Amino acid sequence: MSKVHNFSAGPCILPTEAIEESINGLRDFKGSGIPVVSISHRSPQWEETMHDAEILIKELFHINDEYGIMFLQGGASMQFTMLAYNLLPVDGRAAYINTGTWSKNAIKEAKIFGNIDVIASSEDKNFSYIPKQYEVPADASYLHYTTNNTIEGTQFQTEPVSHATLVADMSSDIFSRPIDVNKYGLIYAGAQKNMGPAGCTLVIVKKDILGKSGRTIPSMLDYQLMLSKESMFNTPPVFGIYLSYLTLKWLKENGGVEAIYVKNEEKAQLLYSEIDSNPLFKGTAAVEDRSRMNVTFVMENTELEDPFLKYAEENGISGIPGHRSVGGFRASVYNALPRESVEALVHCMKEFATKNA
Amino acid sequence: MSKVHNFSAGPCILPTEAIEESINGLRDFKGSGIPVVSISHRSPQWEETMHDAEILIKELFHINDEYGIMFLQGGASMQFTMLAYNLLPVDGRAAYINTGTWSKNAIKEAKIFGNIDVIASSEDKNFSYIPKQYEVPADASYLHYTTNNTIEGTQFQTEPVSHATLVADMSSDIFSRPIDVNKYGLIYAGAQKNMGPAGCTLVIVKKDILGKSGRTIPSMLDYQLMLSKESMFNTPPVFGIYLSYLTLKWLKENGGVEAIYVKNEEKAQLLYSEIDSNPLFKGTAAVEDRSRMNVTFVMENTELEDPFLKYAEENGISGIPGHRSVGGFRASVYNALPRESVEALVHCMKEFATKNA
Repeated sequence: MSKVHNFSAGPCILPTEAIEESINGLRDFKGSGIPVVSISHRSPQWEETMHDAEILIKELFHINDEYGIMFLQGGASMQFTMLAYNLLPVDGRAAYINTGTWSKNAIKEAKIFGNIDVIASSEDKNFSYIPKQYEVPADASYLHYTTNNTIEGTQFQTEPVSHATLVADMSSDIFSRPIDVNKYGLIYAGAQKNMGPAGCTLVIVKKDILGKSGRTIPSMLDYQLMLSKESMFNTPPVFGIYLSYLTLKWLKENGGVEAIYVKNEEKAQLLYSEIDSNPLFKGTAAVEDRSRMNVTFVMENTELEDPFLKYAEENGISGIPGHRSVGGFRASVYNALPRESVEALVHCMKEFATKNA
Repeated sequence: MSKVHNFSAGPCILPTEAIEESINGLRDFKGSGIPVVSISHRSPQWEETMHDAEILIKELFHINDEYGIMFLQGGASMQFTMLAYNLLPVDGRAAYINTGTWSKNAIKEAKIFGNIDVIASSEDKNFSYIPKQYEVPADASYLHYTTNNTIEGTQFQTEPVSHATLVADMSSDIFSRPIDVNKYGLIYAGAQKNMGPAGCTLVIVKKDILGKSGRTIPSMLDYQLMLSKESMFNTPPVFGIYLSYLTLKWLKENGGVEAIYVKNEEKAQLLYSEIDSNPLFKGTAAVEDRSRMNVTFVMENTELEDPFLKYAEENGISGIPGHRSVGGFRASVYNALPRESVEALVHCMKEFATKNA
């Protein structure tokens, strides 16, 4: 079959090298003769991988020992609950910035646990921009925001300024660019974009912010307990962690977040340039807030959208329909998507414009 | 390398056929040209697999439409919390039978949510037997028990009699024998024994017992919401579900739970016979309560335990040390463990006895 250019928003394209190495592990994990899914999570071979994965993440993001790393389950949606359980004191307050579907979900879940101040929102314009004006209440325990809005195609270009502990959902742009972890109290991300397969969640937390909510926290939702057990309070999602580790190893071998950032900028600009110059297309996000991960666009003539989708699919372009809640198109250009896939999409857009001039 | 006989308690041996098919899926899922970990969970190909997995489980256990099937995350430990959130009314009571480490954990987590009556326990004899005498309080919302005690090597041979809704943790013996699902309100199991890899949790629930706890339940912990979204409220643990599906497909192709039950009985009896007849070894569980999944034993002369372990390992026997909390030996003889592996272990035990006569 011809090559598929996979622009899926997540689960998404992962490096072929990482997948092939995971296949080796599925046949024989580290020479044990046992598949990675069948070896005890208490075996030295597996414990080494857990350890190596943690070291690798600390290295990629230059994280110091004030921070702990956890591999959990349930995706970002479980973190919406878990972070509130752990960080929002009984009768306490927290501030949230509402920049789209996932921010809204985070706010909804946190409201179960306490008073939530939505201090800024871009809902007035269908979340097509990142709000710049907001004030964090003096008594907020933390400020929560979503660094990249997968569905709406917007992205914070810098961290919000906050006196309160900064908590970020980085599910769809983690490891896509350098960040200063020291600015954050807690960072979390479902793995299934730049990090690995669905079913594994990364949490990076400044240890001294924990243990202050005054709540009785169920064990599986307790960051302190998970940290103390090095993510092995119970059986971890072994394959998810393994393929995440292999994906991040690929990232390191390819220059780390600093190098991928340059490539990601180039890929995104290539596509945005075509959107801006091709008369058939237009971007949906405010130019200064455009996501480098999820490029959202529509067609000037919406009647051409179905024919364009069909034409693109015939040319091996997969996964570009917009999220079912917004329509249009969304091309996700995550770390593992090669530049040639973006070039193929741009080529399609140009050809389609010529045919429909 | 020589063949490894994998007696690991979990993650554990899975059918080679299922793993190989999952490898095909990691390269090209259903002819899409996209790996199963990289395809959208909203794609028709994936939705078909979710649907097929549900149908297959209903078929294997003869489950009617009064029951719902869910694929969740977090293992049985997350269910300890989730079931209490959903089934234990505010100010309500529930009854638990304490038969070992995992029962104790379930009790501990449920106590966060309400009044828990531990109506029977075998803790007085290191959980070496299954208690037979108990009374379920009239006001108990449910009775919780652990069908098979992975660490202690005991197993309920029949369901407890209960007027209250029966809730069972079947993590380590699900799909190993026929059960009458109609006797249960809720069954849950971490996948990583007979069902698939770690990182996927199966829940089977009688739908009409839900929605009565009177609690505000966080979305990710809400059975009704998860059911209404067919386990796709958020991105599911795709690979875990996929390999579980392939493992259960293998089970069906090999005669289903009825056929595997016969094989499992034979494997367990083969090993218990050797333990009972070999003067060097003795079983730790009460004979009538012995687990058919996890065969626990010690040596009459504990000084021979290390030499025996070494001898067994030299002969390709892997994963037989007992759980770190109890010591001795534990040979887990799950569905995918071939009879020849049990024969190899029995052969080792005989040879070792001859050498140490």
